Amino acid sequence: VTPGSLPTGLLADLEAVVGPGHLLQDPSLRAPYEVDWTGRWRGSAGAVVRPGDTAEVAAVLSRCHDRGVSVVPQGGNTGLVGGAVPRDGALVLSLARLDHLGAVHTRPDGGAAGEVVVGAGASLGAVQDHARAAGLRYPVDLAARDTATIGGTIATDAGGLGVVRHGATRAQVLGLEAVLADGTVLDRLHPPLADGLGYDLRGLLVGSEGTLAVVTRARLRLVRPPDHLGVAVVATEHVAAALQVQRHLADRLGPLEASELMTRAGLSLVAAAPGVRTPFAAPPPAALLVEVAGDRGVGEALSAAIAEVVEEVRGVHDAVVGTDAADRAALWHLREAHTERLAEGGVVLKLDVVLPEPGLPGFVEDLDGLVRDAGGSDAEVVVFGHLGVGDLHVNVLGLATGRVPAVEAAVLEAVVAAGGSPCGEHGVGRQKPGWLERVRAPGELAAMRAVKAALDPGGVLNPGVLLPPAPGAGSLAGQQEGPADHLVEDQQGQGPP
Amino acid sequence: VTPGSLPTGLLADLEAVVGPGHLLQDPSLRAPYEVDWTGRWRGSAGAVVRPGDTAEVAAVLSRCHDRGVSVVPQGGNTGLVGGAVPRDGALVLSLARLDHLGAVHTRPDGGAAGEVVVGAGASLGAVQDHARAAGLRYPVDLAARDTATIGGTIATDAGGLGVVRHGATRAQVLGLEAVLADGTVLDRLHPPLADGLGYDLRGLLVGSEGTLAVVTRARLRLVRPPDHLGVAVVATEHVAAALQVQRHLADRLGPLEASELMTRAGLSLVAAAPGVRTPFAAPPPAALLVEVAGDRGVGEALSAAIAEVVEEVRGVHDAVVGTDAADRAALWHLREAHTERLAEGGVVLKLDVVLPEPGLPGFVEDLDGLVRDAGGSDAEVVVFGHLGVGDLHVNVLGLATGRVPAVEAAVLEAVVAAGGSPCGEHGVGRQKPGWLERVRAPGELAAMRAVKAALDPGGVLNPGVLLPPAPGAGSLAGQQEGPADHLVEDQQGQGPP
Repeated sequence: VTPGSLPTGLLADLEAVVGPGHLLQDPSLRAPYEVDWTGRWRGSAGAVVRPGDTAEVAAVLSRCHDRGVSVVPQGGNTGLVGGAVPRDGALVLSLARLDHLGAVHTRPDGGAAGEVVVGAGASLGAVQDHARAAGLRYPVDLAARDTATIGGTIATDAGGLGVVRHGATRAQVLGLEAVLADGTVLDRLHPPLADGLGYDLRGLLVGSEGTLAVVTRARLRLVRPPDHLGVAVVATEHVAAALQVQRHLADRLGPLEASELMTRAGLSLVAAAPGVRTPFAAPPPAALLVEVAGDRGVGEALSAAIAEVVEEVRGVHDAVVGTDAADRAALWHLREAHTERLAEGGVVLKLDVVLPEPGLPGFVEDLDGLVRDAGGSDAEVVVFGHLGVGDLHVNVLGLATGRVPAVEAAVLEAVVAAGGSPCGEHGVGRQKPGWLERVRAPGELAAMRAVKAALDPGGVLNPGVLLPPAPGAGSLAGQQEGPADHLVEDQQGQGPP
Repeated sequence: VTPGSLPTGLLADLEAVVGPGHLLQDPSLRAPYEVDWTGRWRGSAGAVVRPGDTAEVAAVLSRCHDRGVSVVPQGGNTGLVGGAVPRDGALVLSLARLDHLGAVHTRPDGGAAGEVVVGAGASLGAVQDHARAAGLRYPVDLAARDTATIGGTIATDAGGLGVVRHGATRAQVLGLEAVLADGTVLDRLHPPLADGLGYDLRGLLVGSEGTLAVVTRARLRLVRPPDHLGVAVVATEHVAAALQVQRHLADRLGPLEASELMTRAGLSLVAAAPGVRTPFAAPPPAALLVEVAGDRGVGEALSAAIAEVVEEVRGVHDAVVGTDAADRAALWHLREAHTERLAEGGVVLKLDVVLPEPGLPGFVEDLDGLVRDAGGSDAEVVVFGHLGVGDLHVNVLGLATGRVPAVEAAVLEAVVAAGGSPCGEHGVGRQKPGWLERVRAPGELAAMRAVKAALDPGGVLNPGVLLPPAPGAGSLAGQQEGPADHLVEDQQGQGPP
C-alpha cells in the first residue's frame, strides 16, 4: 500500500490539523508504526498522524469519519495481540504526543490515596515515576512499562503484576476523556459521582481496544506505597502445590501484593543469563513468587508463614525470603528477567490465557505434550504468569512459523476445554476474535455488535479488532474492508526485533 | 387505565408463561406495585407479572417486545426517584420471586473473601444475613435493606453506608445474568476474567435503571467482617469542621468504614423520639459519625485520634466514642433513626445530590434560606448523608405540595452552581432526566441514546426513566408514549404510607 491510498484531500486536511511535521507519509517514517513489539503482527499504514491534543484528535477523527477512512489508534504497540497494528493502508492515529502529566492531588477518602490526570500517550513508567515523586504509587505494573502507554493500558484493561492486590486498569480509572469516531469529545474526567449519572460509558470504553472511541486523557487512582515489603520464592514439585502455597499464605497474611508463577523452563532460561543469582541449586518444576506488605514485622511474619508452608504443604521443596531491598530485587529479577530472556530466545508464539483454579495445574502439565503433538516437536514452552488471578502467559520458542496456527489452536482449545478463557489480560486484538466467539454466547456477541454500531456506525475505528464478524458476514479477514483485505499476520515474523 | 389496555392475547400468553397466580390484573392486586415507598411517585399498571425464573423473564420480555408493550422492571420500589413506577398501563415485571440465595464460596485471592450467586429479587437484608451466616459480609448497606432487592440495588448502583470503604454496588458485582428487551439472556455470571472478553456489558448494565436489560441473577463479592470496630460521633460548629475531622481521622487511622454527616434539624428530630440516647446536651449544628475497623486496639487508637481532633481542629464541640457493641449500636442509631423519623414527619420532597468538597459546607449552610426563598417558608430541611463521598440526602418536611417543583428546582440549581451532581446514589429515575441533561454534554447524551437504541431498539424497557428526551422530541412527558401520556407524579402525595 502506498501513501496514495488515502484521499489526497484528507491528507491535506490532516496536515492542516496537526502541522506538517506530524503527518508521516514516507515509508521509512511510517515503518515503526506498522509492526508490533513481537514482530508477529505487521501491516501497512496509509499514513501516520500524531495529533498534539484532544482537539486535534477530534478534528482528525471527524475528518476520517466523514470520508469513511479507517483509523487505528496506537500507543506503545506492546499489546502482543495485534490490536494496534494497521492494515491495508488505514490511518495510524498515534497518541504519543499526548504525554502530559498533571499535578498529583491527594484525596481525603479511603478509596484512593491520591489521583492524577495524565495524557493517553504518557508511558506507564512515566506515570509510575511521577506518582513516586509525590510519595504515592500507580498500582499497575508490567514489563513493557517504559513503552506501553496509559491509553493503551486503558484500551486493553491491562492487568500486570499488581492485579491480584489492586485490580486491573479498570479499577484505577476514576475518569476518562475520549473521542468518539465522529469526533465527539466525551468528557468524563471529573464526574462528581462517577457512576450516578447515566450509563457508565467510562467503564464501557475501558477494555474496548480502540474500537468504540479513542482515549485522550485519564484521571487515575494512586495508592499509598506499602510501608514494608517482604518477598518470597517457594520452589515446589508441581503447580498444584504452588496453588496450595498461595492459598495458605493469603489465609495467613491477608491479601498478597503479588503472586507470580514460574516454571522450570523459564527458570532455567533465566538462570543461564549472566549476573543472575539463582536461589536454588537446580530450577524446580514450579516456583511461586509472593510479595506481601505490612508493618515493620512483615518480614518475620512472612518467614514464619513460609516455615509453616514448608512444613505443612506437600510438594514444597525449598523457599527463600527476601526482606531488604537488594534481596527483594534479586528475587523479583527471577520473574522480571523472563521477558527479556524470552525476547533474546526468539519467541515465535505468545499466548495469554486464563484458567480456573481446578483446571490450571493439569493445563500447565499437559502443555509440553500438547505443543509437541500439534507439530512443535523441537519447540520449547515457557509458561509463567499472574497465578493470583489465573492469568498465564504461554510462550513457545523454536517453533517453525508454519506450525504456529496449529499450535495456537491446540493450546487455546485446551484452555476452552478446561473452562478457561482464551483471552487474558492482553485482550482480543486481531489474534482472537474467533476465540471470543467460541466462549461468548451469540446473544452477547450480538449485543456487543449493536453497541459497536451505535457508537461507531461507520465502522472506522480499529476494524477487525476484538469483534468477530457478524454471522453470514464471511471470513474475519474479509469482514470489514471487503475483498481487498490482506492477512495482517506476518508469517515470516521471527520474534521481537 | 383498566386491565383492558394491554392486548388480551398478550395477557393470555403471559399467563401461560408464569401461571395464573402470577399475572395480577385486578386493580386491588396491582395497587401495591403502582406507587413507590414515598408515595410521591404513583402510576398505573396494565398488569403485574411475577415470573419465577430467568427463562420466564425472557419469555415475558420476548412477548412484550414482539407487541411493542412497555415493561417496567420492579424490585422493592424503594428507589425514591420513581424509576420502578409504571405509567399509562405499562406491564410491571416484578422480580420478587427470583429470590434464590446460592451457596457462599470462599475465594483464595485478595480481592474478595468470598462470593455468592443470588437472584435479583432477594432482599438486600436477606443477602446480608446469608453472608453473615457463612462468617462473611456483603458490604452494601442502606436503610431500606429489608425491602430493597439486589436487582434494584444493581440497577441503581446503590451506594449506602459502606460506600466510602467498599465502593458502591458496582464494585461488588463480580458477574451478572440479565435479559435484554428482546428476551436474549446475557450470561456473564462467571467470566473467567471479568473484563478480558470484549465489551464490559456487565458494567454497562449496573446503574442503567432497567432501561437496557433486566437483571435476573448476580454473583456478588463478599468481604471479611472487620475483627474489631470503633464508632465515634463528633459534634461540630459547622459542616466545614466535620469535613476537617473526617480528613484528620482518615489520615491518622487509614480508610474509614463509614463517615456520615448529620445536622441539627435531623438530630433534633431523632432526639425527640422515645428510647433514643443522645450523647450531647443539645443537638450540635453538625455531627460526624465515623466507624473504623482494626485489631484489638482499634478503640484506643480511635479515642486517641478523637482526642487530637478535639484539641487541634477548630469548631469541634465534643465527641463520644463507642467501642463495645451496645455503645456502637446506640451511636449508629442516631443516624439510622433519621429515615424512620422523617417518614413519621411526612417528608414531602426527598433529593439526593453530590457536592464536591469545597462547595459542600456552603451548600448545606444556604439550604434553609434557599428553601424559604423558593416558597417553603413553613418547611423544615433535614440534610444528612455519606460525607465520605459527598453524597447528601436533602429532605424537606412541611412543604405545600404546590411548592414542590419550585423548591426542587432551587435546590438542584444550587447543586449545579456548586459544581455538584443533581443525581446522587439514588440515580435519575423519572425525577431527574432533565437534570441529567443539565450536567452532561450533548455528545455524551447522544452516545447514551445510541447505546439505548442499540440494546432496546423498540424502547420498551422502562421508557421515560433515566434518559432525557432527544433534542426536538418534545417534552419529557410526551417523549416515549405519545400524547396519551400522563404525569406520573402524584401531587397529592403526602409522604410515605
